[in-house]
Amino acid sequence: MLEGLGSPASSRAAASTSVAGSLGPAACPPPSPSAPRSPESPVPRRGGVRASVPQKLAETLSSQYGLIVFVAGLLLLLAWAVHAAGVGKSDLLCFLTALMLLQLLWMLWYVGRSSAHRRLFRLKDTHAGAGWLRGSITLFAVITIILGCLKIGYFIGFSECLSATEGVFPVMHAVHTLLQVYFLWGHAKDIIQSFKTLERFGVIHSVFTNLLLWANGVLNESKHQLNEHKERLITLGFGNITTVLDDHTPQCNCTPPTLCTAISHGIYYLYPFNIEYQILASTMLYVLWKNIGRKVDSHQHQKMQFKSDGVTVGAVLGLTALAATIAVVVVYLIHIGRSKTKSESALIMFYLYAITLLMLMGAAGLAGIRIYRIEEKSLDESKNPARKLDSDLLVGTASGSWLISWGSILAILCAEDHPRYTWYNLPYSILVMAEKYIQNLFIIESIHREPEKLSEDIRTLRVVTVCNGKPVASSCLKSGGVAGDVAPRGRDMPPAAKGNVCMREDCGKEEEKQEESSWGGSPSPVRLPRFLQGNAKRKVLRNIAAFLFLCNISLWIPPAFGCRPEYDNGLEEIVFGFEPWIIVVNLAMPFSIFYRMHAAASLFEVYCNI
Amino acid sequence: MLEGLGSPASSRAAASTSVAGSLGPAACPPPSPSAPRSPESPVPRRGGVRASVPQKLAETLSSQYGLIVFVAGLLLLLAWAVHAAGVGKSDLLCFLTALMLLQLLWMLWYVGRSSAHRRLFRLKDTHAGAGWLRGSITLFAVITIILGCLKIGYFIGFSECLSATEGVFPVMHAVHTLLQVYFLWGHAKDIIQSFKTLERFGVIHSVFTNLLLWANGVLNESKHQLNEHKERLITLGFGNITTVLDDHTPQCNCTPPTLCTAISHGIYYLYPFNIEYQILASTMLYVLWKNIGRKVDSHQHQKMQFKSDGVTVGAVLGLTALAATIAVVVVYLIHIGRSKTKSESALIMFYLYAITLLMLMGAAGLAGIRIYRIEEKSLDESKNPARKLDSDLLVGTASGSWLISWGSILAILCAEDHPRYTWYNLPYSILVMAEKYIQNLFIIESIHREPEKLSEDIRTLRVVTVCNGKPVASSCLKSGGVAGDVAPRGRDMPPAAKGNVCMREDCGKEEEKQEESSWGGSPSPVRLPRFLQGNAKRKVLRNIAAFLFLCNISLWIPPAFGCRPEYDNGLEEIVFGFEPWIIVVNLAMPFSIFYRMHAAASLFEVYCNI
Repeated sequence: MLEGLGSPASSRAAASTSVAGSLGPAACPPPSPSAPRSPESPVPRRGGVRASVPQKLAETLSSQYGLIVFVAGLLLLLAWAVHAAGVGKSDLLCFLTALMLLQLLWMLWYVGRSSAHRRLFRLKDTHAGAGWLRGSITLFAVITIILGCLKIGYFIGFSECLSATEGVFPVMHAVHTLLQVYFLWGHAKDIIQSFKTLERFGVIHSVFTNLLLWANGVLNESKHQLNEHKERLITLGFGNITTVLDDHTPQCNCTPPTLCTAISHGIYYLYPFNIEYQILASTMLYVLWKNIGRKVDSHQHQKMQFKSDGVTVGAVLGLTALAATIAVVVVYLIHIGRSKTKSESALIMFYLYAITLLMLMGAAGLAGIRIYRIEEKSLDESKNPARKLDSDLLVGTASGSWLISWGSILAILCAEDHPRYTWYNLPYSILVMAEKYIQNLFIIESIHREPEKLSEDIRTLRVVTVCNGKPVASSCLKSGGVAGDVAPRGRDMPPAAKGNVCMREDCGKEEEKQEESSWGGSPSPVRLPRFLQGNAKRKVLRNIAAFLFLCNISLWIPPAFGCRPEYDNGLEEIVFGFEPWIIVVNLAMPFSIFYRMHAAASLFEVYCNI
Repeated sequence: MLEGLGSPASSRAAASTSVAGSLGPAACPPPSPSAPRSPESPVPRRGGVRASVPQKLAETLSSQYGLIVFVAGLLLLLAWAVHAAGVGKSDLLCFLTALMLLQLLWMLWYVGRSSAHRRLFRLKDTHAGAGWLRGSITLFAVITIILGCLKIGYFIGFSECLSATEGVFPVMHAVHTLLQVYFLWGHAKDIIQSFKTLERFGVIHSVFTNLLLWANGVLNESKHQLNEHKERLITLGFGNITTVLDDHTPQCNCTPPTLCTAISHGIYYLYPFNIEYQILASTMLYVLWKNIGRKVDSHQHQKMQFKSDGVTVGAVLGLTALAATIAVVVVYLIHIGRSKTKSESALIMFYLYAITLLMLMGAAGLAGIRIYRIEEKSLDESKNPARKLDSDLLVGTASGSWLISWGSILAILCAEDHPRYTWYNLPYSILVMAEKYIQNLFIIESIHREPEKLSEDIRTLRVVTVCNGKPVASSCLKSGGVAGDVAPRGRDMPPAAKGNVCMREDCGKEEEKQEESSWGGSPSPVRLPRFLQGNAKRKVLRNIAAFLFLCNISLWIPPAFGCRPEYDNGLEEIVFGFEPWIIVVNLAMPFSIFYRMHAAASLFEVYCNI
């Protein structure tokens, strides 16, 4: 930490207390790493740099700026979506281009400054910007750049009748994507400690720029899906529903025509990846923003490892689900909208497939939670912006699909006549809700469990404490049972007397067995069934995580690539009316799609940490 | 704290560390109250009660339940709003009645249990459920009960053609309101430490029940406002806009007719208060939910005092604004929609009034922030759910009105022809954004400033630290300047040598002067201008807070009682289209209205704390 910037009153007072203590006649033990000092003590605020603004105020200043920019962008998007008089697509693209340009300049400044003043950027948040996250963002960024190239091709083809902004935007977007990925690789873990106000503005600007690009992608994708849906309705001969196509095709001819058609089709298959890229980038930037001025403890996050051994069952089941999904989506997209019977059979097939998959996923999630409940272990509740965001996003975005599910349930309950296929929608909707509920519980508990290493440290510390002050031995032992089951290896122990186990503070692995044995002797509240102990338990959990990971990838595919029974089912549109239901689906669906990708990402992390 | 329930590993380890330390040959100083131990150390989780679920998991379990109930309710509201086939008002009211009944039963259980087991409910969060909050909730609850009586009267009048649920609902609502106010008076400060899972479910159920009742109130109010707006448009002869009234009037005659008309008019004047009641109740319950299982430090919040001396300027200016507002609203409501010229003059009058008021408010806010910036003082950044919710709500709900303001700005910039009165809308919209931005900064900084008492304690502690360990004296003194300006009374001090001021730890008020003097001698980075020192500074800030408080009340009145230029202006409806703009306004307006009431409440608290 940069002492020159000054540290807050309380933390400085404490620092001096401990120094004073250690200088006294008999030094008391130095503060242990697991003492209840919050890892997030208040940050440096004033002192040396007189003009700086308090932490909380800088946060509010920048978050309000970000929100104002964001609502302005949302309104432009709305204006374009509803064909507002006088507001065209070029205004929207100008605005987005300007935002990206501003972000580019800021990122260049930041990167330049951070390489010039290396010493200012020593602190890192080891939980932020994990390797797999940067890997997946790179993958999606590559596809986003390909999308940009296609858009440039599209612009060249239609250059006669498109405004220049439609050409500038994809070029700018590609440059922005390139630099942003470079930025995130190098700086996603930074904990910014200097010039915080300016940097807060830059980061929050980047967060909301990416969110607006996400919203723009979502809107393009929704318009496309809606048009496809309306075309299907026209084919099926529905006359009672408004079927005006919301067409944004340019009013001139493209040369060569076949290439143009291929490009405009290709664009819509790449949008889902662009959408994921933007939202991932904005979450990473948000964590960077939350970390500004934060003070972290020195405890380092243990490195995640990807081990693929022993997860055959989970992987095979998951890959089967993935293959089945692709098959179902292809069949669905071929059959839907061709004729009434074909549409119905496609819907029934989809529902049966989804019901089976969701039941399996729910059962796997329940099994995981059950294992956690049997093996009681303390949760790590220290402050961690990356993890808090993960949990909040899981619950928040699940609400999107809960809204759609309730809509379907209500429609089934209230509709006057029920074609046979609509009944499959009822268990499907209920299972969608239940599965997300269970899966969120599983993931949130998983990401809050302390890594094995840490709890061993705590245990070691406790034993040391027992040695120093005998009167507290009994209370320590009582609580010791809590950690006693953490790593149940080596049960054949010498009978160490309770409260007499003494160790040096730097006791290594050799002494662990002995230590464990003393805990083993204490009245431990629970015992795992033998088949669920140690490695076996870990293997089961990893199989569950692997299976759920692949299933979430599977369930991401159908809505992202146009297999949306919420549109094609028809019942909800009859009950709620076409427009209201379309608005509900278009608002909730992006969150529902994002949920799947985000859950998959979280499960990957869970898998690596088990 | 209930030790029997077990405390988490880390805090227990720490406790034993300090005990061990004090038993050593030479005791080190006991942990001081302002040492950087987080006031929010992890909470008790397991141990004694084996079946309990970890804190984080219980939170997720209950929040997901709450969200599912909430989206179900939202969907029923939507179904009613869009006249969905087969879903009537009675279904919605049934659902709401069932939710209220469930909450009633839970509250009765909780109240009964807490009086039976008093010892379980000793811990209180002194920041939650402040006196003024309970006072205002009681006031709004009384009006809500009157509203309930009017609704019962309405039901009796139209009893021939209304379903029984329309009679049951207001009765249930009145009972629910009564018991909930009683519950909040008695238990809003509780920090629940036992049976947490069940209690979490109860509290979160109550939160979302109140939010749904709020949404129901908002929807009723919006429908009414929209109908009034459409009637005005019909009067003005606008034919190009869809003007189908969304009429929910029963299909039979009411006896006696005049009474019925009076009642149905009266209902709509009381709705704004009902809406505020529901949202206030849900925020209080939300804080109760966030506090479950929390561990607070023993430091007690200082009692707020309402002192009315020395705020004449602020109060007079504020009351003038309030009187002007009422006059403007009355004139506006009489003139608007009568004829084109009368409407335009009403709009111009409103804009001129609002521009003046907003400029004054912005200036007052800036002055307040400026005073805070001159007098640098550390902010209290300890964890405090009530305060965090306040800040988040201020920024979050302000976004609602930023959305509307951007809409107006965009409409003005993009419209083809501009009647004269629309130009007033531009500065008005910009000022609405700027004023909320500034005011939020002022309020958030105010509620985060440490009360005078606390910082004195910290200063005292620091001096003690300086005595104990001389090597840290200089760093302490350097930081001492920070707190040195806190209470600048008694500048005529004996020249105490730096680093030699020694005091007993329980030093009382007598020694404070001497202590201050030593800080006074240290190189303090800033000095307040003399007219802004001590009481004078406090008086200026209190005048600002009083003025802003009354102004926010003033600005709450126009939109709450139907003076909504966003509807009547007409320009936005032309640019965005009637329906999209009405949807934007109806979604954003409730937050904008709530913002004013919430800002007023926060400013009242700020006023009492200065």
